[in-house]
Amino acid sequence: MQTSTRTRTRTIGTTEPTAATTTATATALGGGSAGTRVLTGDRPTGPLHLGHYFGTLRNRVRLQAEGLELLLVIADYQVLTDRDTADRCAEHAENLVLDYLAAGVDPDRATIFAHSAVPALNQLLLPFLSLVTVAELGRNPTVKDEIAHSRQTTVSGLMFTYPVHQAADILFCKADLVPVGQDQLPHLETTRTIARRFNDRYGNGTPAFPEPRALLSETPLLLGTDGTKMSKSRGNAIALGATEDETARLIRGATTDGDRHITYDPERRPGVANLLRLAALCQERSPEELAEEIGDGGAARLKRLVTESVNEHLRPLRTRRAELAADRAHLRQVLRTGCERANAIADATLAEVRSVMGTV
Amino acid sequence: MQTSTRTRTRTIGTTEPTAATTTATATALGGGSAGTRVLTGDRPTGPLHLGHYFGTLRNRVRLQAEGLELLLVIADYQVLTDRDTADRCAEHAENLVLDYLAAGVDPDRATIFAHSAVPALNQLLLPFLSLVTVAELGRNPTVKDEIAHSRQTTVSGLMFTYPVHQAADILFCKADLVPVGQDQLPHLETTRTIARRFNDRYGNGTPAFPEPRALLSETPLLLGTDGTKMSKSRGNAIALGATEDETARLIRGATTDGDRHITYDPERRPGVANLLRLAALCQERSPEELAEEIGDGGAARLKRLVTESVNEHLRPLRTRRAELAADRAHLRQVLRTGCERANAIADATLAEVRSVMGTV
Repeated sequence: MQTSTRTRTRTIGTTEPTAATTTATATALGGGSAGTRVLTGDRPTGPLHLGHYFGTLRNRVRLQAEGLELLLVIADYQVLTDRDTADRCAEHAENLVLDYLAAGVDPDRATIFAHSAVPALNQLLLPFLSLVTVAELGRNPTVKDEIAHSRQTTVSGLMFTYPVHQAADILFCKADLVPVGQDQLPHLETTRTIARRFNDRYGNGTPAFPEPRALLSETPLLLGTDGTKMSKSRGNAIALGATEDETARLIRGATTDGDRHITYDPERRPGVANLLRLAALCQERSPEELAEEIGDGGAARLKRLVTESVNEHLRPLRTRRAELAADRAHLRQVLRTGCERANAIADATLAEVRSVMGTV
Repeated sequence: MQTSTRTRTRTIGTTEPTAATTTATATALGGGSAGTRVLTGDRPTGPLHLGHYFGTLRNRVRLQAEGLELLLVIADYQVLTDRDTADRCAEHAENLVLDYLAAGVDPDRATIFAHSAVPALNQLLLPFLSLVTVAELGRNPTVKDEIAHSRQTTVSGLMFTYPVHQAADILFCKADLVPVGQDQLPHLETTRTIARRFNDRYGNGTPAFPEPRALLSETPLLLGTDGTKMSKSRGNAIALGATEDETARLIRGATTDGDRHITYDPERRPGVANLLRLAALCQERSPEELAEEIGDGGAARLKRLVTESVNEHLRPLRTRRAELAADRAHLRQVLRTGCERANAIADATLAEVRSVMGTV
């Protein structure tokens, strides 16, 4: 249930930084100290599933527990970079809030906001665009990859300038840390370049923007239950909000093989290995250990184990989720409050930017 | 004293639409009816001179007198498209307000605002960027020309996406008419395309944006006093705010020729012809007629005539300008009020855009 490379390039921080290493340019390891700001987010394209959960969401909650301040951007304009319309965007955004809170994000400490609701953040795109060249934008490997894989036959101006929007997302709140996957490093490098150039040109010795550090890590390899890329639209993803029965049914239908003796062999037995990894993540044990326990129990016993592991692991989350889902007005209020906070931050940053740039 | 092609491509509506014709796509001729919105503007790079005055400013006041509503954008971010910094931008902006009011723009009816002070306008850049392709942006002939003539060795993302910013300037207030020079038509076409595509995709039968019409006209050919392109930095431009003595001195130093018999022959006598055109514009007569009157009076009599014509024509404007200049707080207040008005318009448009797009 791997979140696809293409999806990950679009959302900020969709990785699993528990085994965090820092990039060459970062000066400290790990999650940073209390008060450190972490910017991360998701595109509102559908409900979050186990790939998101183990890939990023769980780790955000851990960072929060360490005292870091989370800013979660619901990147609704980024949906337009490879789709024609932002269908059901507002509904998906509300469900993201639901999944965040269910997973333990504290709305009193974190700021959950939508990209499109913060004009001053978006305005930063203009001065930032003046600090990068067209050649640099065209060279960005992730954008090149996006372009190669895009559902659209042509590349829109929004797609082309996407790393600069991401810079605005990260710099508007002067984020210190950005959890990223390896493939997102070029984007973060664009952000760091923009911060550096802005400071050089307008800083007068006092940097307006800190250069954000990457919280780099490996994403656990989780495929969909059919052994292909995990995706809601393929029906192979276990949503956080799925019922225990739905979860059991999906896992029952998962691709395995005829060998009753269960072993962890990702190369030759990818379906079995994928299920073992999932159970291992839920139980915080190793897939090899679980395989040994199952022994000759076959796929049936493996699937029972995985189902129980997932359902047990998610039970507290799902209970909270059901409670929260009963009060949609509260979810909307959380988003509204987050947008207000983000606007206050963005307004202050923009005022500073206008002042040091000497624009009107 | 011709405003350069390059300058004109950056500012909206820097032409002389008194002899207005409309583009093929426009449906009506002339200035439109009362209540029609006209979007035009300038980059805050220095004081306005006679080239601006006869090229655009005078005509804006005429459009206002016909009952049209003026929106004047001080395009401070556009300064960054071919310069590294926005030096003295705020001061230049205040002086633009001064020149506008001195020329007769009524701050109670017109909205004078700065690009950088209207976040909701700038946010429109994002959805609009999703409606144009990189190939289309690269093909824009004016941008190609800008790139070829740019002071910078590389093309910034801001320069590349400039026609889309201009679309945001024009569409945020749903302008009906945009005074443009021939070279700006491709930009306006980009705006019309964006309006059309937005309406097609999100309009649900009700167009969110009117397609603005071009008010196309020829710019009077005015060169600087040295026969080259008129520019403050070359010291060959007569600023609106120059004193009568400064005006006289500049015209005394103008390039002419040794032939005492004054004739209007732009091809062979460009310096003399340029002075005749200037006097003719001031007196609303033809340059040929003035040449005949001067006859064998030589360059000296020509220059006296031009000096008197300019100083007399500008006297009421300069008197008002001196009065207005004594109250800088008033100028700042006019700009502040204009920005507030522009923000109210932009907020309403952005709310509509977010609603029809279905973003958060």
